[in-house]
Amino acid sequence: MQPKTAAVLSSKIVHKSKIKFCPACGSPTKLAIPDGDEKMRAVCSSCGRVHYENPKMVVGCLVEHDNKVLLCRRKIEPAYGLWTLPAGYLEVGESTAEGASRETLEEACADVEIVSPFAQLDIPLIGQSYIIFRARLKTPNFSPGPESLECALFALDDIPFDSLAFSSIIVTLRMYTEDVRSGSIKFHYCTINKRLGASPSDLRSFDIDNHIAV
Amino acid sequence: MQPKTAAVLSSKIVHKSKIKFCPACGSPTKLAIPDGDEKMRAVCSSCGRVHYENPKMVVGCLVEHDNKVLLCRRKIEPAYGLWTLPAGYLEVGESTAEGASRETLEEACADVEIVSPFAQLDIPLIGQSYIIFRARLKTPNFSPGPESLECALFALDDIPFDSLAFSSIIVTLRMYTEDVRSGSIKFHYCTINKRLGASPSDLRSFDIDNHIAV
Repeated sequence: MQPKTAAVLSSKIVHKSKIKFCPACGSPTKLAIPDGDEKMRAVCSSCGRVHYENPKMVVGCLVEHDNKVLLCRRKIEPAYGLWTLPAGYLEVGESTAEGASRETLEEACADVEIVSPFAQLDIPLIGQSYIIFRARLKTPNFSPGPESLECALFALDDIPFDSLAFSSIIVTLRMYTEDVRSGSIKFHYCTINKRLGASPSDLRSFDIDNHIAV
Repeated sequence: MQPKTAAVLSSKIVHKSKIKFCPACGSPTKLAIPDGDEKMRAVCSSCGRVHYENPKMVVGCLVEHDNKVLLCRRKIEPAYGLWTLPAGYLEVGESTAEGASRETLEEACADVEIVSPFAQLDIPLIGQSYIIFRARLKTPNFSPGPESLECALFALDDIPFDSLAFSSIIVTLRMYTEDVRSGSIKFHYCTINKRLGASPSDLRSFDIDNHIAV
């Protein structure tokens, strides 16, 4: 598992590349626009390799059981003590569904079966895209993993919206509760635009754009 | 734009890390399992930083116009001369919808409006996840960009399935044509498991798993 630290704010200003040395040969990189490219990249001053920086996928599960959803209270920073869906960075070699199930096993010791994709939430400012699946418990067992203080099932009316860890989790659970109440659970796409410098848990620190439900 | 080279096969065996030197300080890395982790990672022998390798998102558009779809014939390797949907790597700082529109502008000089998410196709073996949006032309104009030999609209019966560039494109267009013919366009999730060492354009080199349509 990778540490669940908040991603460092990735500036749109690409000349703040974090790749100071070539991962392939160890020589210093320089900033340049490669032939046929339009953006500044970290280019090795010795071997000439171009090093790109791409967004990361965060994958997680919205586990449904007896009209409740499974939340985990974080035992790690950031957002220590706040509630979240089990989720974390996708690893090379696994599908997003496999990654979401793995994170749910790690954080809530819950063995789940994927039901369907529920949401894709892009957060361009921090270079993350959340992929959230609906899932069900294979057996009605769960318990806190090493990164969780506790895990619990919440009825929709009892979701602790004032104590959620991240904007992505707030948005997912808002969309889900609205869908369930309307009687039609959809797939949602949207962009979360955080306000620069805002705390990830500040309920008023983001806007939702380009929301499409299908 | 980033070069559209095929991703090097990322082995599930993580000790084949491509990060030989620390991008932050330039010292050699060593392979180790960090505290609280379960996998071998590239760890800097000097500053101790852990360097993770994560899958990349490939974003693209399925542009619909007059009951036809827009395809581009590739002017670059791999799959030079074969047909594809406009698509490429997502950049830090943009949403997947913005990235898909940008790639469509770059490869087909087409200014498009996103209609809805259409498919997410994970390819774990090469560490890629395709995110494909339905889109429409804002104006009925398109022409080949620097990476395309030609661009053209194809009726569904005329899609050149034997001359498509990648398994992801074959799968997307199969799902789309089936949806249109059934009268109901859905959102699709699936995993594409390529057979190891197979050519990306070999029509029989992959299996589809865990297909969910919502």
